[in-house]
Amino acid sequence: MKEFMGKDFLLETQTAKHLYHDIAKDLPIIDYHCHIPPKEVFENRKFDNIAQVWLGGHSVENGKDIYFGDHYKWRLMRANGVKEEYITGDKSDYERFEQFAKSLEMAIGNPIVHWTQLELKQFFDCDIPLNSKTCKQIWDLCNEKLQNDPNLSVLGMIRTSNVEMVGTTDDPLDDLYWHKAIADDDSIEVKVLPSFRPDRFFKVENKTFVEDLKRLEDITKVVVKNFDDLVEALKQRVTYFVEHGCKASDHGLSYVPSVTINHAIANRTLHKVLNQQNVTTFEIDTYTMTLLYELGKIYAKNDVVMQLHVNAMRNTNTKYFEKLGADTGFDNINNHVNGQGVQILLNALTYEDACPKVILYSLNSAEMELFASLAGSFQADGKVASQIQLGSAWWFLDTKDGMENQLKTLARIGTLGNFVGMLTDSRSFLSYTRHEYFRRILCNLIGHWVENGEFVNDEEILAQIIRNICYENAKKYFSL
Amino acid sequence: MKEFMGKDFLLETQTAKHLYHDIAKDLPIIDYHCHIPPKEVFENRKFDNIAQVWLGGHSVENGKDIYFGDHYKWRLMRANGVKEEYITGDKSDYERFEQFAKSLEMAIGNPIVHWTQLELKQFFDCDIPLNSKTCKQIWDLCNEKLQNDPNLSVLGMIRTSNVEMVGTTDDPLDDLYWHKAIADDDSIEVKVLPSFRPDRFFKVENKTFVEDLKRLEDITKVVVKNFDDLVEALKQRVTYFVEHGCKASDHGLSYVPSVTINHAIANRTLHKVLNQQNVTTFEIDTYTMTLLYELGKIYAKNDVVMQLHVNAMRNTNTKYFEKLGADTGFDNINNHVNGQGVQILLNALTYEDACPKVILYSLNSAEMELFASLAGSFQADGKVASQIQLGSAWWFLDTKDGMENQLKTLARIGTLGNFVGMLTDSRSFLSYTRHEYFRRILCNLIGHWVENGEFVNDEEILAQIIRNICYENAKKYFSL
Amino acid sequence: MKEFMGKDFLLETQTAKHLYHDIAKDLPIIDYHCHIPPKEVFENRKFDNIAQVWLGGHSVENGKDIYFGDHYKWRLMRANGVKEEYITGDKSDYERFEQFAKSLEMAIGNPIVHWTQLELKQFFDCDIPLNSKTCKQIWDLCNEKLQNDPNLSVLGMIRTSNVEMVGTTDDPLDDLYWHKAIADDDSIEVKVLPSFRPDRFFKVENKTFVEDLKRLEDITKVVVKNFDDLVEALKQRVTYFVEHGCKASDHGLSYVPSVTINHAIANRTLHKVLNQQNVTTFEIDTYTMTLLYELGKIYAKNDVVMQLHVNAMRNTNTKYFEKLGADTGFDNINNHVNGQGVQILLNALTYEDACPKVILYSLNSAEMELFASLAGSFQADGKVASQIQLGSAWWFLDTKDGMENQLKTLARIGTLGNFVGMLTDSRSFLSYTRHEYFRRILCNLIGHWVENGEFVNDEEILAQIIRNICYENAKKYFSL
Repeated sequence: MKEFMGKDFLLETQTAKHLYHDIAKDLPIIDYHCHIPPKEVFENRKFDNIAQVWLGGHSVENGKDIYFGDHYKWRLMRANGVKEEYITGDKSDYERFEQFAKSLEMAIGNPIVHWTQLELKQFFDCDIPLNSKTCKQIWDLCNEKLQNDPNLSVLGMIRTSNVEMVGTTDDPLDDLYWHKAIADDDSIEVKVLPSFRPDRFFKVENKTFVEDLKRLEDITKVVVKNFDDLVEALKQRVTYFVEHGCKASDHGLSYVPSVTINHAIANRTLHKVLNQQNVTTFEIDTYTMTLLYELGKIYAKNDVVMQLHVNAMRNTNTKYFEKLGADTGFDNINNHVNGQGVQILLNALTYEDACPKVILYSLNSAEMELFASLAGSFQADGKVASQIQLGSAWWFLDTKDGMENQLKTLARIGTLGNFVGMLTDSRSFLSYTRHEYFRRILCNLIGHWVENGEFVNDEEILAQIIRNICYENAKKYFSL
Repeated sequence: MKEFMGKDFLLETQTAKHLYHDIAKDLPIIDYHCHIPPKEVFENRKFDNIAQVWLGGHSVENGKDIYFGDHYKWRLMRANGVKEEYITGDKSDYERFEQFAKSLEMAIGNPIVHWTQLELKQFFDCDIPLNSKTCKQIWDLCNEKLQNDPNLSVLGMIRTSNVEMVGTTDDPLDDLYWHKAIADDDSIEVKVLPSFRPDRFFKVENKTFVEDLKRLEDITKVVVKNFDDLVEALKQRVTYFVEHGCKASDHGLSYVPSVTINHAIANRTLHKVLNQQNVTTFEIDTYTMTLLYELGKIYAKNDVVMQLHVNAMRNTNTKYFEKLGADTGFDNINNHVNGQGVQILLNALTYEDACPKVILYSLNSAEMELFASLAGSFQADGKVASQIQLGSAWWFLDTKDGMENQLKTLARIGTLGNFVGMLTDSRSFLSYTRHEYFRRILCNLIGHWVENGEFVNDEEILAQIIRNICYENAKKYFSL
Repeated sequence: MKEFMGKDFLLETQTAKHLYHDIAKDLPIIDYHCHIPPKEVFENRKFDNIAQVWLGGHSVENGKDIYFGDHYKWRLMRANGVKEEYITGDKSDYERFEQFAKSLEMAIGNPIVHWTQLELKQFFDCDIPLNSKTCKQIWDLCNEKLQNDPNLSVLGMIRTSNVEMVGTTDDPLDDLYWHKAIADDDSIEVKVLPSFRPDRFFKVENKTFVEDLKRLEDITKVVVKNFDDLVEALKQRVTYFVEHGCKASDHGLSYVPSVTINHAIANRTLHKVLNQQNVTTFEIDTYTMTLLYELGKIYAKNDVVMQLHVNAMRNTNTKYFEKLGADTGFDNINNHVNGQGVQILLNALTYEDACPKVILYSLNSAEMELFASLAGSFQADGKVASQIQLGSAWWFLDTKDGMENQLKTLARIGTLGNFVGMLTDSRSFLSYTRHEYFRRILCNLIGHWVENGEFVNDEEILAQIIRNICYENAKKYFSL
């Protein structure tokens, strides 16, 4: 029996151990997509206790209740029958931590068990399994360190994790104040670069859409009367972002609609929305597709990677959405059909010689093979290896099984060695250990293939594959 | 090489062997969903020969041909090229058994091979592999026991299988005569409790729908003029069922429609049907959704679990449906899209604080992760651990691979330790060995995780997980 | 560590080694579906160099550029960032080969690595791993043999591969000149039999459709004024094909539409097309379904197997389609929904007692279980074991993982022992080693089941299963 999450955790062969310990482990981290607040990096935030870091909580801003924290953990607690008062409610931090620890006991096979222990090990040098029997001991141990260890400030965590670059997720309306502050501060070594996420300008059905447009007009001085004006205004914001280091954009969409690009209909849709008229699904879909196309061209010109995240069903539980707002653990997988829509988009961009680098993420595993094969139909430019990429296993798929499935799918249908690798997609500064988790899984998979005689045991080639996927591909792909 | 289906069948690690033999094996069985006839329990039916038990056959009731038996085995034989006369036709029981035995030879990797041998071992103390060479020997051996061993009556099988509760599947029009008879008979220890399955009141397109409604009116004395009357009548039947021990309902639906709950349209649909007017798919869908919503509220009030079974395509082969009727082996997996529909239903019920315990079963594996994640968005009541459950691997998925997939999916996306576990869904009294099959697979999976260092080797926690999934969770969840 | 692709490649147990080396390895090959040109068989084509065999190239026919070759390899190179000039462009054969060799280094986990090495071993007696370090050596070695070894002509490759039958893919308008020439040549032992692939008569939206019909009229002397005439003309062509040894048909469809068979609408659709009027999707779908039904009946009468290939999205990249034409590596998986459509077709044919043998291939793994279960609903004739078959893992699924998934799915849901087994679907004469790949994977899977105690270790039964799947089932199923 192997020890619980010991030195060789998930490394089942000698080759895997060698690849991980001698090559993968010490490579820097490029965390090209996540949701951490740059303000907390600049301010080098510290935490009072481990519940604060892991479970977040509740604050009041401008008289409004704000709930923030790791909704993965919240969902785990809810599924374990923990009452909401221990999750987003008024129970003490220790009581909430205790409930989390107890929930882990039934969570065998859940990645949160592994994330928890990897974070305890990496940041707190603790390898005690967290459960209801050990939670007081671990609570004390963590809190002592959080208060006294300078490595447990935000910048300390980033530095000890060997993070070279962090890609945040930002609104086109954002002035990137904190990104500039970080860039201007010579004492901060890590690059914290914005990503352009213009989701709000796709949501024409949102009550705030017209108001959002006004804010865009104010910032860009472009009067948005027509669809072309909107594209122009967003282009200015992309330029602004690029001037501040932006290397990637991101789009969170229910689905990529299977409709034709059509500027006249997109324009008519915008007019209707500005005039508070009803619009049909077809009109919204055409507006979406046409805007994706125009933004794609802008990204291509500016060497900005286009990330597409599809198949999430968000804010599904109205009762709790009204209480707690978005991103509080009430989202799930959906089963939209995206193949034809993505094809229409990539085909049109390729035809115009204006296709950016694109990463395709589907939250529905049933589309994993489709996306891998679709990517392979649009690689034909020879500019960069695997210009169109199958994205890393995302959100509910970000598990050992999910990562193995993504890696094997990409290997079968594309070329694994060109994969840009792991990202945390996280709101937590402790999550960098997920790169360790990924690297162990990657090395184990490759070790298995090699020791089973399925790939040549060539040290040079294997080392290059590992370095590529863990570090060098991302550096090249994101032009860092 | 391990012996064929020996003592440690499917138990690949020491931990797995310990968990199965020392903990799981002797726990009682709660078979909360199946299709056995309670009459045969009360009458303690005996069988003349093994073909009768396994392959069923043909009888004439009220001048009508009735075909009954294990359609899993019938399909296996058909896929092996066996002529229908050996399946539902007039060949002798031994000739039919011989064809079944022969079919097993080509059925490597099929669960029926395992079910067959587990049943031979458990009930007939026979560990000879069944095939064309051994079928005469096994035929004689089984029949001798069936005629002489008191443990091979229905009640004997239930008792020796350590079954504590059986959940049958029953029509709202059923008077539950046999359930009462069993409950009143002190010599019968097993609880045989009805489940409420009102499928016929969803099938407005059925020729018998109006007649079924009349029978409902007769029983309940509620005159059904409007949709509300129908709800009231069904509510009375739920109450009646609950008075007779009902703990669960069951819905077999092609799909959960993605439409809004709308009582006016549901009512209009019912009126049209009563007046023999045509109804549209949209009207039927709205009727379905609204009726599911109203029944959900009734179930919540009565602590009745709501089971949803979706994605079966039934009676697909008209030629044989006309000959043999339903449930004769001509059903298969379908690929409807259920995510949004289930979300609409659970969201509405949760919003009204009226969501019952719900178990989601999809016959299409491609929806397994979706259902697991959707369940996680509606756990927020803290009343019972995992109030919304991902159902056990069902029908065509009820295999070693299918169960491992369901267990791993639930583990990754929810909390496995709260799973209510296995059910047979069977029409046969020998099928309790499927709980053994499940328990071996469960212990093997957990053993693998523990011995691979992926979960802590804590005897107390592991034992609790096993006891929970095999027995205690179901007991609690179904309020037994 | 096992040696790289050595004698026991993919054979992980003693049972697997025994089954492969002593039974599977030397069985003849029936390659019942592929895309090789019969002309090259008759002419016993030779190749100048290995790039020609593996990477194909570019020629000019009738003043038109033609690109031909292994688009799997082209996609691999494109995904590796190789410029098009090295793929379909004017770079020298050696430079192109060098880029291919280099691409293999990043292709860990991709079947092309295995195919490449199996072909080097089988045809060139070379077990050096191909990569950028070895490519010159292997280039020289292969080319020397290609020029001097008589076994490296097309007929030599077929003979040394022990191929008994090859099923080509042919147009109804084809006169089968080369098939006749081969049949008439006593010195050619292999059977090269045509398959009937009438795709062009389904594509009513094609610009050449009316012209194609005229060619059909010319050949058959049937004037096609109505849908029935078209059926009659195609029936004549099936008869012609059958007279020349045809055992199978093939249909490449985006999807099998979920519409009713309706001759009146099919006829109306044909009239509209002949009169250059627009037709709706519904009309095309009905035309498709009705034509499939009529052809199905014709196939049944003529003992012709009906193959349905669905869920490919073809020619997705317009830029390269305009440059290079079809089959150049710009196709991918799609996610259409086929369950109901296939059911409608099989049900109607079965109801008329006119269902042919049917093989169902879906390019979307998410439909694999559905197709396996749907097949099981239409086996009821007892004419041949598994009359309706789940097709072998196809195209993007034709990988180790994909084949294991197909085999396990079929085993769980049908009877594996009746599977007609592997086909290459290839355009290359070196691809017969894919049968070796398949046989190793099959023996390994069965070996694993046996050694894990999941199936009885009965030499006779196991040997029969292996012989069935590798050779005898196909021989019987295709009436060879």
